[in-house]
Amino acid sequence: MSLSLYDTTLRDGNQARGINFSLNDKIRVAHLLNDFGVDYIEGGWPNKSNPIDEKFFKIISKEHISTSKIAAFGSTRRPKIKAEQDSILQDLVKSEAPVKTIFGKSWDIHVSEVIRTELEENLDMISSSIEFLKAHSEQVIYDAEHFFDGYKANPEYALKTIKRAEQAKAEYIVLCDTNGGSFPWEIEKIVSDVLKNVNCKIGIHCHNDIGLAVANSLSAAVAGAVHIQGVINGYGERCGNANLITIAANLCLKMGYDLKCKDNLPRLRYFSLAVDEVANAQSDIRAPFVGETAFAHKGGAHIDGVLKVSHSFEHINPEAVGNTRELITSDQAGGALIVEKLSKILPNIDKKSPIVAELLEIVKNKENQGFAFDTAGASFEMLARRQLGLFKDKFKQLGYRVIEDMGEDGLHVSEASVKLQIGDKIIHEVSEGDGPVNALDMALRKALIEHFPGIASVKLDDYKVRVLGSKVGTDAYVRAWITFGDGKENWHTAGVSTNIIEASWLALLDGINYYILVTEMRTGQ
Amino acid sequence: MSLSLYDTTLRDGNQARGINFSLNDKIRVAHLLNDFGVDYIEGGWPNKSNPIDEKFFKIISKEHISTSKIAAFGSTRRPKIKAEQDSILQDLVKSEAPVKTIFGKSWDIHVSEVIRTELEENLDMISSSIEFLKAHSEQVIYDAEHFFDGYKANPEYALKTIKRAEQAKAEYIVLCDTNGGSFPWEIEKIVSDVLKNVNCKIGIHCHNDIGLAVANSLSAAVAGAVHIQGVINGYGERCGNANLITIAANLCLKMGYDLKCKDNLPRLRYFSLAVDEVANAQSDIRAPFVGETAFAHKGGAHIDGVLKVSHSFEHINPEAVGNTRELITSDQAGGALIVEKLSKILPNIDKKSPIVAELLEIVKNKENQGFAFDTAGASFEMLARRQLGLFKDKFKQLGYRVIEDMGEDGLHVSEASVKLQIGDKIIHEVSEGDGPVNALDMALRKALIEHFPGIASVKLDDYKVRVLGSKVGTDAYVRAWITFGDGKENWHTAGVSTNIIEASWLALLDGINYYILVTEMRTGQ
Repeated sequence: MSLSLYDTTLRDGNQARGINFSLNDKIRVAHLLNDFGVDYIEGGWPNKSNPIDEKFFKIISKEHISTSKIAAFGSTRRPKIKAEQDSILQDLVKSEAPVKTIFGKSWDIHVSEVIRTELEENLDMISSSIEFLKAHSEQVIYDAEHFFDGYKANPEYALKTIKRAEQAKAEYIVLCDTNGGSFPWEIEKIVSDVLKNVNCKIGIHCHNDIGLAVANSLSAAVAGAVHIQGVINGYGERCGNANLITIAANLCLKMGYDLKCKDNLPRLRYFSLAVDEVANAQSDIRAPFVGETAFAHKGGAHIDGVLKVSHSFEHINPEAVGNTRELITSDQAGGALIVEKLSKILPNIDKKSPIVAELLEIVKNKENQGFAFDTAGASFEMLARRQLGLFKDKFKQLGYRVIEDMGEDGLHVSEASVKLQIGDKIIHEVSEGDGPVNALDMALRKALIEHFPGIASVKLDDYKVRVLGSKVGTDAYVRAWITFGDGKENWHTAGVSTNIIEASWLALLDGINYYILVTEMRTGQ
Repeated sequence: MSLSLYDTTLRDGNQARGINFSLNDKIRVAHLLNDFGVDYIEGGWPNKSNPIDEKFFKIISKEHISTSKIAAFGSTRRPKIKAEQDSILQDLVKSEAPVKTIFGKSWDIHVSEVIRTELEENLDMISSSIEFLKAHSEQVIYDAEHFFDGYKANPEYALKTIKRAEQAKAEYIVLCDTNGGSFPWEIEKIVSDVLKNVNCKIGIHCHNDIGLAVANSLSAAVAGAVHIQGVINGYGERCGNANLITIAANLCLKMGYDLKCKDNLPRLRYFSLAVDEVANAQSDIRAPFVGETAFAHKGGAHIDGVLKVSHSFEHINPEAVGNTRELITSDQAGGALIVEKLSKILPNIDKKSPIVAELLEIVKNKENQGFAFDTAGASFEMLARRQLGLFKDKFKQLGYRVIEDMGEDGLHVSEASVKLQIGDKIIHEVSEGDGPVNALDMALRKALIEHFPGIASVKLDDYKVRVLGSKVGTDAYVRAWITFGDGKENWHTAGVSTNIIEASWLALLDGINYYILVTEMRTGQ
């Protein structure tokens, strides 16, 4: 069985409180989605009041997006004008996205009371808009907004609206449970009814207002829908959209579907976490399939059972989704992970070597503090090389001071000084900067550039901060995460402290030391 | 239609990572559950290795628990001994809980490979254990562990196990999807099959490993189950248990059930948050029905629709579950939203008033910089009141200085000084802190406490930082968010700057000024 996945993380997901993708964030998520293998990536609603979305379509058309098709979102034309005169449709055409998805009204009350036009005019808005866009697109997808509520209120009219979309040759007609209040048995019945009345590929778009978005999406598939729209990790307005991570895993691993992303399921946890990271959203530890505790067994009877017969307490093998079984008392998975991570430095290390146990202990302690080595490979490498005696510091840090000053004139000054020792020489440099971390970065470079002129080419490509834990006020642990680049490669470091300046400093030092290490290895010893 | 709710927050919920109820916590949660009106409260598994649970049953029997029945949990007797000789069953009797719930095996592989006994002996374990407990209890409930997996593997044997429970006169036979891997259509069919074979009240107990615990519980009810087990807010091992909050709301408000808790649904959000608070768990802002954003509308078209016809974008009235509609300010929304948000301050303002356009312009500019008023209601209110001339600053900021110092000893000092003017008086205070923002917060309070002693009660409940945009290095825009609380209410502020200290300072100032404003209004002018 086949079915296409349509991701709307960048549009509907972006409506979630606390999620505001920047243009660069959107490009990064689009690449992640393409790597994962969704069939469609909805990039946004391109128009003048959404400048980020407008730019997104320009940029993404030049990027290497090979698996997924890019879709731009909009609505049917306004009442009583021609499709070609409608600014929304014009903007969609201007986006040059190969796929255009537009929503229209299915519920009579929405036609008469929200957009305030006649029922017949709404039907015409649907067909004329689709026809107009068809002339400028590879595919047009029609989202039938509020279809289930509309069908419950007035089935004849709701069916009429999608028959118009069928006649206008929409690629898919997507039935939307816009208010998220429908039950799986309703969805299944209504999708079946629809399939008796139209001869078109049907899709489903669910919201999670009553906690059933995933169930509803899957029930639609059981009834014959062949296209599912959703959002990575279920972000979205109100209670969120159907979680595409959960849906993909269920379809491929448990329902026998053959999706384009099937071969990437062993990286499902990675994709879920990577999108959370870009969104700066806290990952749900209990998320089905991909959560940190999804295969963690705490109850004694469960642990005993799992050790005797693994499927006795597990519905699938955790590796199928890139997750790991965790028994609260067991370190086995950890050791294997360290061996895997060390393979770059020490290819033939034995799992039973004492250095593995030692490093595992250090890594576990640091991760308990809030370190996340998964997204800070250079910090792990520095830690391991130091532990193995394979890196000797080329400079010694003697201290730093940061002064933030805001005076009566409202002007702001950030100044940092850094004191280092290289050989016998004490170096003490000071710099201003745009904020305390930037000042610290500038002062550190100023202190090092004479001995390591190459660091002039090192740039901070990204800097993120995450406050760990909640209900803790300003003295919570903070993780600073930096991506460095020198034009040839990128590397990632992290620092953790209750102090945001110190956390950033630690990440800065790791990144600069890593650069010095790599340069040393490149130029040969 | 009637149906009983069985809460296992204190037993299965307590298996979740990060949740560890103390004895007092358990008593508090039991009272909350009783006030809410669940039919059964499972308190734990009383035995010598669970001293908290043993004590719980002693204490709770003397408390005023009038609505719910208290249940103690355990398992069938061990193989090859008499029920009365089994220590688990003896401990259950000793607990004196009026209801005893025991689980037994339904899946043949579990009998032969996990508990390692004969299939016939397992049947006897079930009936003899129930019969023994019946003699010492008001009711005995039988949990058929792994029933669905067992039924899929060997339906005859699975049915035999529950027929024994039926003969032994269990009050309910509860079919458990222990591994959480079943689909609603499977649950519905198997519950229907069971009801053709036994003449006993059937219950359901679901886990959320594939994201379907709520759907599965409701599907069982549709098929004829009359008892649902679950956990408040869906805590539990791995991916959690069925969320009893979502289930109760769906059954009462949307499926026409007449539950004991029905009249308490307008306090549903309160119960959910109160249990989160005892559990020290972060509340899910997107939780169905009760989440902070469950009825928050952000998209411009949605806001426009909700203001015209509220049920056009809402599946129920938020007040039915003690929640509130919220229209989120963002650059996607327009004047209608500003009017709605201003209604608290200026109830009769006209949408066409120039102040609306003015504020919209300011809000849009600030949001383009990276402000997010949707999560900073108090910052919006301060902005609007200042713009309207409805708030006069009670103090003038003359400046601040933050010094971060790390010396050769590796010791870290964060010091902040704050200079303010109140009336003619210049106040200059200094404080150390755990990091720069904490030091700044301490110094600001120290400077203000003499004039505004109430700020001693104001706490920073949460502090978050987001670096906006990527590929920008350390001079990127930063947004700091703070949640304040004074024990009576919470309020949220944000600050944006390229400087993380300044962003935090702006959010701190808004939060303290908001507190001063609210206190002023409370004490009356």
